[in-house]
This record gives sequence, C-alpha cells and structure tokens, in this order.
Amino acid sequence: MKYEIRFLPSDLLTNAPEGTTIFNAANWMGLAIDSTCGGRGTCGKCKVRVVSGVAPIREADRKFISEADLADGWRLSCRAVLHSDCVVEIPRLMGNPKAALLGYGHHVILNPNVAKVYLELTEPNLDDQVSDLQRVHNALAQEGYDAHSNPSVWRALPKLLRANDFRATAVMVGDELIALEPGNTREKNYGFAVDLGTTTVVGAIINLNSGAVEAVKSELNRQAAFGADVISRVSHTMMEPDGLSELQARSIQTLDDLLDQLTASSGIARENIYEAVIVGNATMLHLLMGIDPEPISVAPFIPAITQPVTLRAADIGLRLHPEARLATLPHLGAYVGADIVAGILATDLTRNKDGQLRLLIDVGTNGEIVLGSVHGTLATAAPAGPAFEGAQIKHGMRASDGAIEGIQITAEGQVILQIIGGNHLKPIGIAGSGLVDAVAEMYRAGVVDASGRLIQVEDARAKLPDALRERLLTIDGVRAFRLSDPASNIVLTQQDIRALQFAKGSIAAGVAVLMQQMNVTAKDLHQVLLAGSFGSYINPASARTIGLVPWVAVEQIVAVGNSAGEGAKIALLSFREREAANRIPEFIEYVELSGRAEFNDIFMETLAFPPLDAES
Amino acid sequence: MKYEIRFLPSDLLTNAPEGTTIFNAANWMGLAIDSTCGGRGTCGKCKVRVVSGVAPIREADRKFISEADLADGWRLSCRAVLHSDCVVEIPRLMGNPKAALLGYGHHVILNPNVAKVYLELTEPNLDDQVSDLQRVHNALAQEGYDAHSNPSVWRALPKLLRANDFRATAVMVGDELIALEPGNTREKNYGFAVDLGTTTVVGAIINLNSGAVEAVKSELNRQAAFGADVISRVSHTMMEPDGLSELQARSIQTLDDLLDQLTASSGIARENIYEAVIVGNATMLHLLMGIDPEPISVAPFIPAITQPVTLRAADIGLRLHPEARLATLPHLGAYVGADIVAGILATDLTRNKDGQLRLLIDVGTNGEIVLGSVHGTLATAAPAGPAFEGAQIKHGMRASDGAIEGIQITAEGQVILQIIGGNHLKPIGIAGSGLVDAVAEMYRAGVVDASGRLIQVEDARAKLPDALRERLLTIDGVRAFRLSDPASNIVLTQQDIRALQFAKGSIAAGVAVLMQQMNVTAKDLHQVLLAGSFGSYINPASARTIGLVPWVAVEQIVAVGNSAGEGAKIALLSFREREAANRIPEFIEYVELSGRAEFNDIFMETLAFPPLDAES
Repeated sequence: MKYEIRFLPSDLLTNAPEGTTIFNAANWMGLAIDSTCGGRGTCGKCKVRVVSGVAPIREADRKFISEADLADGWRLSCRAVLHSDCVVEIPRLMGNPKAALLGYGHHVILNPNVAKVYLELTEPNLDDQVSDLQRVHNALAQEGYDAHSNPSVWRALPKLLRANDFRATAVMVGDELIALEPGNTREKNYGFAVDLGTTTVVGAIINLNSGAVEAVKSELNRQAAFGADVISRVSHTMMEPDGLSELQARSIQTLDDLLDQLTASSGIARENIYEAVIVGNATMLHLLMGIDPEPISVAPFIPAITQPVTLRAADIGLRLHPEARLATLPHLGAYVGADIVAGILATDLTRNKDGQLRLLIDVGTNGEIVLGSVHGTLATAAPAGPAFEGAQIKHGMRASDGAIEGIQITAEGQVILQIIGGNHLKPIGIAGSGLVDAVAEMYRAGVVDASGRLIQVEDARAKLPDALRERLLTIDGVRAFRLSDPASNIVLTQQDIRALQFAKGSIAAGVAVLMQQMNVTAKDLHQVLLAGSFGSYINPASARTIGLVPWVAVEQIVAVGNSAGEGAKIALLSFREREAANRIPEFIEYVELSGRAEFNDIFMETLAFPPLDAES
Repeated sequence: MKYEIRFLPSDLLTNAPEGTTIFNAANWMGLAIDSTCGGRGTCGKCKVRVVSGVAPIREADRKFISEADLADGWRLSCRAVLHSDCVVEIPRLMGNPKAALLGYGHHVILNPNVAKVYLELTEPNLDDQVSDLQRVHNALAQEGYDAHSNPSVWRALPKLLRANDFRATAVMVGDELIALEPGNTREKNYGFAVDLGTTTVVGAIINLNSGAVEAVKSELNRQAAFGADVISRVSHTMMEPDGLSELQARSIQTLDDLLDQLTASSGIARENIYEAVIVGNATMLHLLMGIDPEPISVAPFIPAITQPVTLRAADIGLRLHPEARLATLPHLGAYVGADIVAGILATDLTRNKDGQLRLLIDVGTNGEIVLGSVHGTLATAAPAGPAFEGAQIKHGMRASDGAIEGIQITAEGQVILQIIGGNHLKPIGIAGSGLVDAVAEMYRAGVVDASGRLIQVEDARAKLPDALRERLLTIDGVRAFRLSDPASNIVLTQQDIRALQFAKGSIAAGVAVLMQQMNVTAKDLHQVLLAGSFGSYINPASARTIGLVPWVAVEQIVAVGNSAGEGAKIALLSFREREAANRIPEFIEYVELSGRAEFNDIFMETLAFPPLDAES
C-alpha cells in the first residue's frame, strides 16, 4: 500500500509505503527539513504543515506545537506517518544549511551523525544537588538530545567537570554521549570514510563541520597475500584454524596503516575521529568484523548479516577515539554488497528526480549490476572471473606502471599503445582496460570475428593490412596477436580473448536478465554508469563494441569513479542520507542468477560480440 | 498536573502525572497487564479498554487492534498516555502468571528482564536468502521483540546455526539479544541479586523461570580493610593514586568470592547468569563502577550518577555470562541510595494501597529515613556516626559471638544479659542493639536520667537497689556502669551514653524534620519500619524508650529485614517492578539536612530521652 505525497513549495511528488514518516519521505527526496535529533521526536524542529491528508496528533506534537498550530495542520514530520495521500508544506530552513557536493553531482546537506555540543553548566550547590550525569543530560535535552551514556563517560565525569568550571564539550553520536571533552573542542570534529575493497582500500578523513576531505589515501588490502579474490579469502578461513582472525587482523592493519598516513599528512589526531563509515562487499565486511564468511561462498549464499550495523570501532581493534562508533551500510545480497549500496546512494539511482532508467555496473571479479529508477530497481551479481583484473591473461597485469591501458588500431594497421606511466615506458603487460580496448579494436579491424576467433593467417593475407598480419603468431600451438613491438613481445592469445568473452558475457547476461525481467531494452536506458577504478579507465566505446554494456550512445556511458567511497562519505556527512541508504534494500529486488535456468542460455548468446554495423 | 485513573474490575484508584502511560500507572499499582515486550509497543499484548477519558489512537494501536475494537475504546496500554481523568478496564490475564512472594509481603508477578526464547528456524535456500541475523530477528519479532544484537552474537552466528539444524535459544535482556545458545536451553536461566553494603554484601542466585532463590550468601565487604564507613573509603581514593581502582577491585573481589560460593553450592554455572541487579548506597555503587566518589563526600554532596544505569557486567570485571547485563536502581541523593530505593520497593511504602503513613529507618553510620505513603513521601539522611556499629564505644564491638545484644534490668536490680552465641559465653563486648537496650533499661531503672546523665553515687544510695548501685564505677575520672559480672567487667561509660545520644538524636532529628515538613505527628503513623540487620536485632521497646523512633505502640514497630536485598530480587524478577523502582525518585522529595538551620535546634531537643511516663 503506497500513498502519494506532494511537497510544497517545491511541488515534488513521491510515493511512499504506509507507515513512512513525512520526515523520511522528504529525506528520501533530498528535501531538507530542520532537525537536530535526526527524527527521534525530541528536538521539535521538524515542523511541517499538512495541507491535506490524514495526520493524527501525536504525543510529541503536543509537546512542541500550540493548539492553534495543531488545528492549522502543523505536525512534527518525524512523528507524522502516512495513512493517505497528502500534501505537505515544508517551511524554509532556518539559517543557511551547510552543504557539500559529493558523489555523482550529489548535493549533501551537512547533518552528520556526530555532533559536538558545548555545555556551560551551572555549578551545583545545596539547593541544586542534581547529579553530574543528570546535569549533563539535562543540558543536552535542551539541545534536543535524549542522551545515553556509558561507563567511560561516567568515570571521567566528576573530575572533568570540576577541573574545567563545569564547561565541557559533549560528543554525541546519534543519541549516544560517547565522550565529554574539557572546554570547547567543537572545532575538532572528524570522521573516517572507507571503501574496503577486496583489492584496494580507500580511506578519507572528513571534516564533519565543513564537509571538507582533509586527507585521502589508498592502500592495497593486506589480505591480498591470501588470494586476489573473495573466494580465495574465504577458502583461507576454511582451511586454516586461525584463518579468520588472521584475515581480520589484516583488514585492521590496512586501515591502521591508512590512518597513520592520513593523520600524518593532515595533522589530525585519531582521538578526534569519532565515527567511521565503512563500506565493502559482504565478505570484506564479514572478515572485518571477524564473522565467519563461509556460508556466503556456498549455495544458498547466506551472509550472517545484511543489515547495516553499528558498533564500537574499538570492538574490532580499530583505533580512533576510544569510544568512536563504526557504521556499515546494508548489503543487498551475498554478492551485491554495501559498496554497491553506497554507489546507489552516490548516484541517486533509486530516487532520481528525473525518473529515468539507469544501469550501474561495477566490473570486477564479480560484476555487480543495478538497473532501475525511482520507479523500481533490480540488482544482481554476475561471476566475471579475474580477467578484468588481468589475471588468467597471458600478459595480464594490474593497472600499474608499464601496463598497456589503451590501444588504437589505425586503418593502416598501426597499433598505438597507451601505457600507464607514459608511452615512453617499455610495455610489460596489459591491464583490464587495455584488454577491452585491444579486443574491441581487433574486432573492428577484423583481427577477431564476432565469435571471438582470431583470424587464420591464410585468411589474413586477403583481409588485413600487412602491418597487422605480421603480428599474428602461433605460440605453443595457440594463435596469438602481438600488441607491442617484437622486443617487448606483449601478446594476446586466443585463450585470453576467450577469457575476456566469458567475463564480459557473464556481466552482459546479468544485464540482459535484469532488462528482460523489467521488460526494457537498451533504448529505454538513460545512462549506463560504470563504477570503480576499472570503470574510470575503460574506453566506453570499446566496452560497447565488445558488448560489455548495452548498445547506447557513447555519451550515455559515464564513469562515476569510486562511487562506493563517495557513498561512504555521504553517509558520514549526513545521517539522513545514511537512513536513506539503509532503506535502499527495501526498494530493490535482488535477483539471484545461480538459480535461474535462462541465465545459461542468455550467457551463451552474450559470449559473442554484437554486430559491428550497429556502430555507424 | 495529575489525573485520576480508575481501574476496572478491581476499582482501584491512582493519580498519575500527565504523560504517564496506562501501562505504567497499572504497574505502579501492582496490577498485571499482559505483555512480553515490557511496554515497548512491539508485542501488542497489553490491550485495555478505555471506558472514559481521552486516549488518541496511536500508530502501534492500528497495528494490533481492529477498527471495531478501536472504536470500542481498546488501546495498547503502553502507548496510551494520560491527558485526562479516565476509567480503564483491564482484561483478565491469559493463563496463570507465575508469582513469588518477596520483600515485605510483596506479591511479585514474574516478568524478568531476561527471557529465553527457543527458536526453530527454517533453513535458508536459494528462494529464501534472508541473512542469518535477519532470520533470527524475524523470529524474535514474532515473539514481540524488536531485537538488537552485538558483534559477539554475530561472530558465533553462522557456525552455531548450521551446527544445530537452525535450532537455538535466544537470550534476551530487554530488547538486547545478548547471546544465542545451541539447542533448547530455556531451563537454565538465572540472575544475581546483590545488596552491596558498606560492611556486609549479600548475594543471591535467583531462578528467573521460577522465582526461587537457588543460593544466598553474605560476605564482609573486602573494602573494609580501608575503613569501616563510606567516608574513610572515599578518603582512601583521595589520598592514594590507585585508591579508586584498588577499592573497585575489592568490590569485584567480594562479589567474585560470593559467586564462587553460590555457584559451588547450587551447581549453577556463571555462564547461565544473564543479569545482575546490584543495589547499595551511592558511594558503594560509584566505587563498584570505578567512578570517583569524592564529590559525594564534600558539600554540596553531588554524586556523578543518581539515575539507574545498565552496563555489561564484564565492563567492570564481574564474571557472569560474558555478555550479562548489570542494572542498578536510582539513588534519591548522595546519602539516600539505591539500597533505600530497593527497600521502598520491597515495603511498597510509596504505593501502598491502604494509603497509610509509614516511616522507614535504616540505622547505620548514616541513618536513612523515609516518611510517606502513596500520597507523598519525604526522605533524608542523618549522620549518626559509628556508635550503632559499636565503634567509639569503650566496649563496643560488631554483632558477633560474645557480644551483648540484649539487656534486661529487673525491679530488684538484677542485670540479665543476652549474648550472641549463647548466654553461657563470657561477654566480651557490647553490640549496637545491646547498647540501645542497656541505655533504655538504665533509663527505666533510674541509672540514667532523661538528660543522659549517669546517676551520682551519693544520689544512688537513696534511689537505686544495692545490686545496681554497686555497678556504678569511676574509671579514669569518668563515671561508668558495669553491665557484666566483675570478672568480665564490660562497662558503659558516660561518654558511651553521650555517643549513643548523639547517634539517636541525629536520626530522631531527621525524623522530626520530615514530620514537621509533612505536618504530621506520631499519632498519624501507621507503622515504623526498621530496615537492615540492626533493625532486625534492635528491641522495638528500647528504641522507643531512648527516642530513636517516634512514640508509637510497640506493635507498630516492625523489623523488615534486608529490604534492600529483597528489593534487588524483586527488580531482578520483574522489569515492571524495576520500572516502578526507577520512578520512585519522582515521587519522593529529598530533604538535605546540612543546609537547614532548624536541624541543629531540633537535634539539641532530641538528644534527651523522652519522658518515661509516656510508657504506661
């Protein structure tokens, strides 16, 4: 049961299920309503006027709204729940909210879950014997917080207050009073946003007062020593008695090293980092928390946890402020994780105001695929294998100095290489984006046919320029094509091309299953968004030529960068956006491919390359 | 602003402030309303019918109550808040609730905060990929729990479910899922109730399924090495850098020793104890939690915490189940602590259905005094000094073997002693109750006059039988009276009598201040309740004779035993009673004596003994 809600004065429309609060529906649309308590009904600031529709008066309403205003339709939007279609007027925000531009053109109003509240308390006397803690809680209640605290705060309390004339700064994470600091420390307020990738981990220290990124670094995941992909990591936990704790320690070590660099370069102390938002795939986050990932890896593929969780960072050995909190985002399924949810948040895929259909693909050893719009969304994961990462490719390598990352074949048969680190470098291998480019160009040049077969030398004589023909080789009985000069001798074999076909075919089949299920075609797509570093380096035209993405105009194929990391930052800077992210799974249907008979049929079809004549 | 609420069919009346839920008002009166979620609005079982009065329909009501029943006035009592006088019909309980008799004739319906829920989950498959945790939470939601859990549960989850065919027992403490145990372990469900006294610590293991006390033990508080009273303990924390952690460790050591004995005698494992309720005075509970007690001990006497708190027992080093919770009750002030609140709970002083006025006195180095009824209550603490504990008395001693605990003086002047351990023992000193008895009997026999002065030997000749006269001595120039035979030579000096007068005068003055403030006299008192071990041993007639308690009939003076410990048990066995206890401070006005000019005047008056002719 969904109801239509129309917001004034913006005149924006949305549909939300029975029971949704007006506050959440507005947040979902990116409309800012004043609030300090984050929708907990305690600050009284989120008043809206219900112009039409049912909105019974609630307890909290009576506390903050006069009888006359109640009669006029004013309600606390965080308590007002939809039971009918309605029209709601949102008052102009008091003051200018700070905002930051993040993600894929995403305008985020700063409203971090961490807030520092400076308190100037009255000192107790015989006529005012309120306890220290109650005194602090009372002051926080005036700021709209229904505070909870823990022994670490209690223990410090008596001395801290008395040594500082009862002036202190409360560090609130949501309603948790996690620390009291002497005097006024509001200026020092930071968070840690992390994209914990299987291969690469990106961390950023964010200024929670300004939204500024104070420092950002990436590191290879130190778990890599136990295998390149999630399956080998899970295997390690199954084979070795200490495997799980070993891998957990490696995650923490990676984050710790990142923090060492980030704090050194920014001069920010770990003690002033009060919250971390960490996204990653389900296996990475399970390992981070020391949770057995084995059932993720075998049918029926069940994570221990898909919901977003909050814990003390110290509980997993992550050294920030001793009471700092750590939050994750939800997973959609075993193989579409919180990193993708973060990407969906950063790209606004599920709540785009234009209502257009978008396809988001994150290409890796698993291709995560999300197809949808505000009207409905499907997601799935397709097992691509490691070809895009350069593994199982004869001269494949990671995207680092000396790797071929782009290729162009001229009409005259000249092969022009683009090499990471500069074209003056001697090429030493081929990166994923180079592989896609190479195969696409070879297909366009006729070196490879639509089925993926390398041309026979005898056929080449008639069909290819000499410059290309002389690059055809046979190595140990396997046909190959030399990409570099003979001295460097970087080649692509028939087997390499087959590996790429399997990888792209799997992703393309996943896309096709979702498009079939949604009953749409490439023509209905507004954009194809390529996420992740692979997505940033890949040539959109080549991706389209080999059929990795559906046939849309090249301008419609957009690299969105590290959308997972952007989503983590957004969730750190705005608890409303975080709440929206946490609700993303409600709006998405997860499609499990391994159970579906038609997947294999479609996969067989998508192994081939699409006809070249579509290019013109 | 208070409203009158009338409960049907019992026809009981109470007044409750605006904003109180009907559920809480009923609990407060001891009326049982069905509930498994404890008033969190999630189980839907606490339906009542509002016969008259205002009760707006709330979100949760719509979830659990049909339109027809809503129209008929049915509401969830935990969501229905008072905005007017009202009449409410409570339906008969489904099934027979278990109950236990605890405290001072207190009938407690078992509803512990700890609940074990046996779960038989369906196993996941490709069509049901719900995560392990969500699967558990969904099953708990069906039982009315909106469960929260923590990493310790998550880490165990995948292996535990798969090793036990997805059958497990959830251990809930409130809404916290603190543990999952393999298979069905509902039978093993225990709690730990503690009265953490300055001198004596009493602990009991309680069966939370049956309410039975499985084992009970008392131990001397191992902090005693650092002083007998709270002031010397606080001094130790101020003088020694490690004093606070030393005293905390001693509290834990005391509880640990108790647990060793309790688990040995009952055969119950610590791992099956899931919650502790610990009461004690503010200083004892601050020390237990490692919180600096110094500001409690100096004006204006401010505890760090007076509100009830909940923490992990492991956070203070108490070894029960690793995730067991520990709850305290609130303090009324620096010197009327959670032990007294527990005593008020156990004696029903603030919510007695008879509406009668009662006076509760806990005599120790501080005398805690509570005067009131359901119509209003005052509390205070009077500094009695250590006389009742046998300190600063020449032959004073603790109540142990060889101590004189009772005395009778016959008309012929014979002094009959009652000795702890048997009257055949040689008396070696005098306990607090013996001191009260001795002075009362000496006053009745004319050995001491109303001002507390020992009779002069020359006056005694005319007024006392020979047998008494020959017991009058002078020791180092100080008059004294020999209680024992000359061989044992246990004496009471003039100074001892003065010390007793100061102690009882202080308490009597505290009582007088409260009675004055409430504008009542001894005639208005229904009962005088004496709490604690001293209260159990003291002779009510003697207490009255020396003016320690107001002049009521001896039958009206009742020893209520360890009411603090009983209150802790009640709070452990019923979260509703615990909620009632947590609200007790709202109903009590704490009277600080140290700020009051009239206290000293009254104290001067109460030093003397009341006229003997009142006795007849």
